[in-house]
Amino acid sequence: MKNITDKLIDKIIATGNPTVVGLDTRIEYLPEQLTKNLKTGEDVSKALTEFNCKLIDALYDIVPAVKIQSAYYEMYAHYGIYALYTTAAYAMEKGMTVMADVKRNDIGSTAEAYAAAYLGASGFDYVTVNPYLGSDGIKPFVDKCAENNKGIFVLARTSNPSSSELQNLDVGGEPLYMRVGGLIAEWGKDQIGEHGYSSVGAVVGATHPDEARALRNKYKTVFFLVPGYGAQGGKGKDAAASFDANGSGAIVNNSRGIIAAYKTDKYKGMTYTAAARAAAEAMRDDLASALKK
Amino acid sequence: MKNITDKLIDKIIATGNPTVVGLDTRIEYLPEQLTKNLKTGEDVSKALTEFNCKLIDALYDIVPAVKIQSAYYEMYAHYGIYALYTTAAYAMEKGMTVMADVKRNDIGSTAEAYAAAYLGASGFDYVTVNPYLGSDGIKPFVDKCAENNKGIFVLARTSNPSSSELQNLDVGGEPLYMRVGGLIAEWGKDQIGEHGYSSVGAVVGATHPDEARALRNKYKTVFFLVPGYGAQGGKGKDAAASFDANGSGAIVNNSRGIIAAYKTDKYKGMTYTAAARAAAEAMRDDLASALKK
Repeated sequence: MKNITDKLIDKIIATGNPTVVGLDTRIEYLPEQLTKNLKTGEDVSKALTEFNCKLIDALYDIVPAVKIQSAYYEMYAHYGIYALYTTAAYAMEKGMTVMADVKRNDIGSTAEAYAAAYLGASGFDYVTVNPYLGSDGIKPFVDKCAENNKGIFVLARTSNPSSSELQNLDVGGEPLYMRVGGLIAEWGKDQIGEHGYSSVGAVVGATHPDEARALRNKYKTVFFLVPGYGAQGGKGKDAAASFDANGSGAIVNNSRGIIAAYKTDKYKGMTYTAAARAAAEAMRDDLASALKK
Repeated sequence: MKNITDKLIDKIIATGNPTVVGLDTRIEYLPEQLTKNLKTGEDVSKALTEFNCKLIDALYDIVPAVKIQSAYYEMYAHYGIYALYTTAAYAMEKGMTVMADVKRNDIGSTAEAYAAAYLGASGFDYVTVNPYLGSDGIKPFVDKCAENNKGIFVLARTSNPSSSELQNLDVGGEPLYMRVGGLIAEWGKDQIGEHGYSSVGAVVGATHPDEARALRNKYKTVFFLVPGYGAQGGKGKDAAASFDANGSGAIVNNSRGIIAAYKTDKYKGMTYTAAARAAAEAMRDDLASALKK
């Protein structure tokens, strides 16, 4: 049986585009026509949803996946969460793989509740999780992956500037992120799909290409979700370090570089949807070119 | 000016009870009269809220704080989040300190969104956060603490069985949790209150008393949130390791041991509210006795 990562890889092959669009939908990204009459929580919820759904309409045939960053929805309490779920349902309807970027983690019994919340049978395809609590905080998510054919991405080497403070500490001859990479490979070893990748993946930032390459070379069954491309400074060649020799093994996230592309000089004068599509095509071509080398 | 931890310590002194009640409200904990007609998401939301508010009524004069475990609300999407916020508002109205146990963390720009979501001027008093991304994932929360007189508890040494996998790794002569303890002390050094404790605190499990004592002795300005008492196996004497010589410096969480006390043999036949109050009194006395030694 194909695991969720097989299905994602199939979509990446079909679109020729290993990109996930990050719906980090800040209210400032919305065009004026969507924000001029925001009076209630319901208004905000509807505006976020409309912005997202029109982006999905503009992108679903050329981009395989969306990643919804929960923080920007949690800002609006239950109104935001409604927008998050409505967006996710719409993206699924359009055939996209849907990731909930929530970076959850807790002790075992509570991790079970989180896993049930996000990886139920009709839930998200993937969720991001944090490894700091160790195996018993991860196992409930891994179990749900097996039960409902879902996936997770565990933080290994994040893209932010201070990520090295803990992640690069030497823990007996290897940095902490490599140790975490080994745990991720172990957690996912029973869920390896037809393409050779587990449903238990890792978050590996494009801003640290040498470290991504080390993880890629050592943990060959771990699929990578790669943030940090674009606004955070990562280039196509940096992201390429997370891919295997066949040009597979990773999907690269871009959030504001696509969803707010219309606010940049490059796409000036275009609608937000047309600019997003053009930016997604440019990213696809940039990655294709980087992966050829 | 008193920081949020001064206010919490004042309430602990007034009640003689360094306990926070964890509202890890699983639907199975609710008595039958609250669950017999749950048909819609609104029904669940109302039932969770009613259960919580009646517990707050039964406890607010003898317990200084509640900690709401977000996972059990996120299970019900926007319906659950509505219950979470309604519960929080009610507990604040009753004068309790309210902690959102969300263990959030992300890159800086996203951490800003989380900090805005949870530590706004009218938001929760405290939120729990995860340190794995390093300083730039924490600083936005620390800034909100200063701006709105709020607090955070950063995971240092968690109470779960596999917490040692990463947290006890040797990182150059000290375990990772001690290194994290040092970062927490540094992050909070500009927000130390009249009682000597910062608004930037640490999560330190009662299940590892020797490690709690090492953290307590080394980082004297860091206030501890102590999970793991009760159902997870921690006793009064284990929790006592997180307190300073004056019997201050920590608050101990108990969730199911209080909110589901009526389901245990000890409190059989009592209503859930009466059992919760009796269990909270027993815990207060247990901690008082452990702290005298």
